[in-house]
Amino acid sequence: MSVTSKEIRLAARPVGMPKESDFEVAEATIADPKDGEVLVRNIWMSVDPYMRGRMMDRESYVPPFQIGKPLEGGAIGQVVKSKSDKFKEGDYVNSMLGWREYFVSGADGLTKVDPNMGPIEAFLGVLGMPGLTAYAGLMRVGELKDGENVFVSAASGAVGSVVCQLAKAHGCYVVGSAGSDDKCEWLEKEAGIDKAINYKTCGDLDAAVKAAFPKGIDVYFENVGGAHLQAAINYMNPFARAALCGMIEQYNATEPAPGPNNLIMAVGKSLKLQGFIVSNHFDLLPDFYAEMSKLIPAGKMKWQQTVEEGIENAPKAFLNLFTGKNFGKMLVKVGNDPAV
Amino acid sequence: MSVTSKEIRLAARPVGMPKESDFEVAEATIADPKDGEVLVRNIWMSVDPYMRGRMMDRESYVPPFQIGKPLEGGAIGQVVKSKSDKFKEGDYVNSMLGWREYFVSGADGLTKVDPNMGPIEAFLGVLGMPGLTAYAGLMRVGELKDGENVFVSAASGAVGSVVCQLAKAHGCYVVGSAGSDDKCEWLEKEAGIDKAINYKTCGDLDAAVKAAFPKGIDVYFENVGGAHLQAAINYMNPFARAALCGMIEQYNATEPAPGPNNLIMAVGKSLKLQGFIVSNHFDLLPDFYAEMSKLIPAGKMKWQQTVEEGIENAPKAFLNLFTGKNFGKMLVKVGNDPAV
Repeated sequence: MSVTSKEIRLAARPVGMPKESDFEVAEATIADPKDGEVLVRNIWMSVDPYMRGRMMDRESYVPPFQIGKPLEGGAIGQVVKSKSDKFKEGDYVNSMLGWREYFVSGADGLTKVDPNMGPIEAFLGVLGMPGLTAYAGLMRVGELKDGENVFVSAASGAVGSVVCQLAKAHGCYVVGSAGSDDKCEWLEKEAGIDKAINYKTCGDLDAAVKAAFPKGIDVYFENVGGAHLQAAINYMNPFARAALCGMIEQYNATEPAPGPNNLIMAVGKSLKLQGFIVSNHFDLLPDFYAEMSKLIPAGKMKWQQTVEEGIENAPKAFLNLFTGKNFGKMLVKVGNDPAV
Repeated sequence: MSVTSKEIRLAARPVGMPKESDFEVAEATIADPKDGEVLVRNIWMSVDPYMRGRMMDRESYVPPFQIGKPLEGGAIGQVVKSKSDKFKEGDYVNSMLGWREYFVSGADGLTKVDPNMGPIEAFLGVLGMPGLTAYAGLMRVGELKDGENVFVSAASGAVGSVVCQLAKAHGCYVVGSAGSDDKCEWLEKEAGIDKAINYKTCGDLDAAVKAAFPKGIDVYFENVGGAHLQAAINYMNPFARAALCGMIEQYNATEPAPGPNNLIMAVGKSLKLQGFIVSNHFDLLPDFYAEMSKLIPAGKMKWQQTVEEGIENAPKAFLNLFTGKNFGKMLVKVGNDPAV
């Protein structure tokens, strides 16, 4: 017995800002699992800015998506048929096989999700890759010390909002930037940071960053690039660290944008700018879970999510990442969770 | 009894490329040393690119030079009168009080130079700050591992030439860039690097760097900035390190130059770009001397120097740093060494 599964395929490689027609909804027939395999029905899937990079045909740390093939990405689903001794029917699993309703997979690449730790969709956000990205970037790459001064760009996003609250939990002075007054209000009132800068309305971002950091910046968590990075470098203290997580401003650029014009300051101030990808830091998972399992029950780790319903709306959800229409983690609800 | 000492003062803050009229030769009267002090006659003084930064009126890791006051910088001199129990007449000392013929100083800030370790002027170059800069940048900031692939810009300079030979001593594949065929020839034939690129005549620097590094770059030692840095980022391997020592291209810029347009690659390749200044790495001096005292006698650490005679020619020597007229360490011979 097979099932029919709707999936989203890459129809064309986007040029500049992606558009709906770069994607197509298709149906695939999913065969029964063989020995050692499971059939999974996806419930939640994630759309993330980094996926834009995989839509380009270039050498990278992950292979590019192929035209005519389904996209991939983080997803939480439920095992509906199991021929693996590692999973039983009803188990929730985290996979990289999002953008589709059903899939068959071996046990490798699936991890069990404990629905008692939090809502299952949190494993795509605060308890998942975005959360671990925040933790690895801030603690290991950023070498955070308690009480330092931290600047976070895209601070209300899935990664940034965790960075902000982790830094606050470590006694830091935290300033974040976001693109709307709603997001800024959430950052100050809910996430509890010291100051939020609306970079779209603040006028001179450099002046706003300067004013927000009378004692300079010790750690800059970079999600945006461009003017944000340049301003951060201007006000970073000697021996400050920039954890380069992403530069969303540039993902849809058709021409390479010039870099910061003040990189020379990295010499005199002994700055460290270091890029990272979360998959090289999975060894931090136990430490990360330990910290989150203290912060979440204590109400010190809050999150926002924006949900689109139905696999057909996954492209729209993805496109909204680049226009700032999401608030916090952007998710697509692909199917029902029988437990909710 | 006092002595008359010629000295070079900053006459005006240079705008763009410095010119002779930004400097003036003056005479000062140097009083006898008081208790605990010594009178030193300078023999050699150093001119270095970093001094350009101190000619600007800006906040920096060292205070700016003052107009109408003598400049400062590394110098080797001889004690001619001592009222300190730490130095006796005839001792050679290293100080930061160059750009003048004589000075009086307390013992702090003076270090004795052992003329048996090498020619005394080498303590301004291969055995001095440039040498230690090379060592700290390559070994600590660059985290060099034996056998890696190393790219060095301004490779025939006082710092770069030591970087090249240290890396060769660690079994590395080493490519350097320089601005003349003479320099390139010296790098390949004397310093023994694998390939030298004449960045002025190679046409497309990016293509030349790509061709020179079929296995990519593991450590980039940055002295130049601009197109060099951009090319290095393009061909750096995952987890590669860039030790940012200087960006001489930009020192005389009147407008900030745009940075590399490919900094986003630092994310996907987990690159580290880290600036440093030698004064934070003086703890490496014993390790550095230990390594140099093996390499120099073995003929594995060669150097070039360009000498201008007479304190009056110090400004000219300094200006030549920015036109590529120096070859290796640029020195000014301020007085005679009675031992030579």
